[in-house]
Amino acid sequence: MLNRRFQSTVSSSLNKGTGIVFMNMGGPSTVKETYDFLFRLFSDGDLIPFGRFQNILARFIASRRTPKIESYYKAIGGGSPIRKWSEYQSSKLCEKLDIISPQSAPHKPYVAFRYANPLTEDTLQKMKNDGITKAIAFSQYPQFSYSTTGSSINELYRQSKILDPDQSIKWTVIDRWPDHPALVKTFAAHIKDTLNRFKTENGLTDTKDVVLQFSAHSLPMDIVNKGDSYPAEVAASVFAIMKELNFSNPYKLTWQSQVGPKPWLGAQTEKITKQLASSDVPGVVLVPIAFTSDHIETLHELDIELIQELPNPSKVKRVESLNGDQTFIDSLAELVKSHIDSKVVFSNQLPLDSMLGVVSDNSLTDPKEFFRAH
Amino acid sequence: MLNRRFQSTVSSSLNKGTGIVFMNMGGPSTVKETYDFLFRLFSDGDLIPFGRFQNILARFIASRRTPKIESYYKAIGGGSPIRKWSEYQSSKLCEKLDIISPQSAPHKPYVAFRYANPLTEDTLQKMKNDGITKAIAFSQYPQFSYSTTGSSINELYRQSKILDPDQSIKWTVIDRWPDHPALVKTFAAHIKDTLNRFKTENGLTDTKDVVLQFSAHSLPMDIVNKGDSYPAEVAASVFAIMKELNFSNPYKLTWQSQVGPKPWLGAQTEKITKQLASSDVPGVVLVPIAFTSDHIETLHELDIELIQELPNPSKVKRVESLNGDQTFIDSLAELVKSHIDSKVVFSNQLPLDSMLGVVSDNSLTDPKEFFRAH
Repeated sequence: MLNRRFQSTVSSSLNKGTGIVFMNMGGPSTVKETYDFLFRLFSDGDLIPFGRFQNILARFIASRRTPKIESYYKAIGGGSPIRKWSEYQSSKLCEKLDIISPQSAPHKPYVAFRYANPLTEDTLQKMKNDGITKAIAFSQYPQFSYSTTGSSINELYRQSKILDPDQSIKWTVIDRWPDHPALVKTFAAHIKDTLNRFKTENGLTDTKDVVLQFSAHSLPMDIVNKGDSYPAEVAASVFAIMKELNFSNPYKLTWQSQVGPKPWLGAQTEKITKQLASSDVPGVVLVPIAFTSDHIETLHELDIELIQELPNPSKVKRVESLNGDQTFIDSLAELVKSHIDSKVVFSNQLPLDSMLGVVSDNSLTDPKEFFRAH
Repeated sequence: MLNRRFQSTVSSSLNKGTGIVFMNMGGPSTVKETYDFLFRLFSDGDLIPFGRFQNILARFIASRRTPKIESYYKAIGGGSPIRKWSEYQSSKLCEKLDIISPQSAPHKPYVAFRYANPLTEDTLQKMKNDGITKAIAFSQYPQFSYSTTGSSINELYRQSKILDPDQSIKWTVIDRWPDHPALVKTFAAHIKDTLNRFKTENGLTDTKDVVLQFSAHSLPMDIVNKGDSYPAEVAASVFAIMKELNFSNPYKLTWQSQVGPKPWLGAQTEKITKQLASSDVPGVVLVPIAFTSDHIETLHELDIELIQELPNPSKVKRVESLNGDQTFIDSLAELVKSHIDSKVVFSNQLPLDSMLGVVSDNSLTDPKEFFRAH
């Protein structure tokens, strides 16, 4: 092991630069990838612990849900744009990083999705082929949940054991960034843009009573009750954005995308939006606070299923997702530079979150076992 | 109405100063007040909506729970210290305010408890007798819940309709302060003190792996699911304190005091503390983040029921509550001064919280109906 470490130190001196790996859940880029996506999702015991019935139930639920979800992807243009945005964001980020962090250059962008192409194993193989020896796993979930970020980390750990058993790649991880300016300032700007649309499109003279409704993907209560960090970190993002806006408007944090019979964390986005839309509140701005790019939860669940079905759809407007916003990407590059400069390998929170979240023997229980300084 | 307003403006020019009213749930100062306290608590439809069975159920549950709760109050010295601390804090705060805010002086301290003496109606009568015409309702719940702050506001509104129908007192309200330095800096200091105790009492050379476990009173999920502001504001307090501490330690937010068969918000404080205490974490600092002074939830539930029952009680230490901390009280005075100077009557959030939270016809649905500028 020590020998191996030494070798990788030597090879890193050849300066192959730094791999920047955007980790996210992903989505099917084409309609026909929907079943595979759903099957992988329901197979993930970190996300939905089915125990020894995991595989059978995953097949059953994925099959049953495929036709409906396929129709959603058709309705939003034939697939999820998350791959397109992730590849765009990561490559633009690396361009910026080459300028502001020359000591870790060249930076090479990668995307590793948990349930869709490019999958973690394919990206890992590509990195090995590219001769990468230093890499940063950059969670694109700004707020940490063991069921999302934790699952991506576990997958990276498991696939590395198979594909990179000698640990030729040294990994650090950015496992959360709930209050980083990249998120806070960009969302604040997008919210202001959307408030202005109430003036131009709805003829409101004053938008101060428009409600800012922040919406994040919900979690099952059994995950919340284990002590998952996500609800509190999402709330921290919301509060930071409201502070950036000087609390200019009333706001509320709600939770979307609940499925199945088990209890999930509320209040439900749909319920609150409908309540607000039918009240004398002059407007509602929906802010998908836990996503960095559009995907089915914004383009279909919010835009089509929720807003278009309202009796007064113009009263509810969704902010544009971060997507290709150059200010956002530049700020993300600053975030990565700070991570590199700080020499931090993983956050103070990750060991505790791993301890409380862990569900299987095949998980990374101690981040020190896998992540180490460049 | 206009006439009445005019009269009160005239009388305020006589400069009777400003009443500063600390609102809180309260607790029985003596053991024999326990039943009355519990009966009032379970009678509160804003806290526990029982509908038309409210009174009967309140009597039943209060009777059943009285012996046990009486034994708790006996165990912590014969009563709740919350009245003592509230009276101390409010009077010291007014002394400070007289110096830093002479234009609103003299400041006169009052306490209005929701379920214990001094009750809202008694305090209101006293204020009338004292000739108070300007008052600030100052919620001592730093984070807003409709079931706590909302309930206190509703009670003030209802009692004022009876005792002050002419609105001779003009009220503004400080309905939340989740990230105010009074809370953030004082708790950060108390946490550092407690971390140091791990060095002196436990011989730890380095406290960086000690877990900071923030604990707040939980809420039933049916209140959370209505969109109550409390969980997100508690999370905002925690994040602000962690930021003040530069995220020096791992931390977790958990929820205490769940009772009854209905689902409550977790993770449960007790469960997580026990999990941490039996792990290889070197220590746990418990931080009761939603309370400003000691009462039964700190002195009995945390100190006796939880910590003393652990196999290794020295591994878990609770931070001192804010109680008589002069830095805290001085900072609270700054908070009140900012409120006065800002001319804010109530927060931007209060109308929305009132709309989503309201349970009865007898509630204040629009804060403008009751609160108005001094």
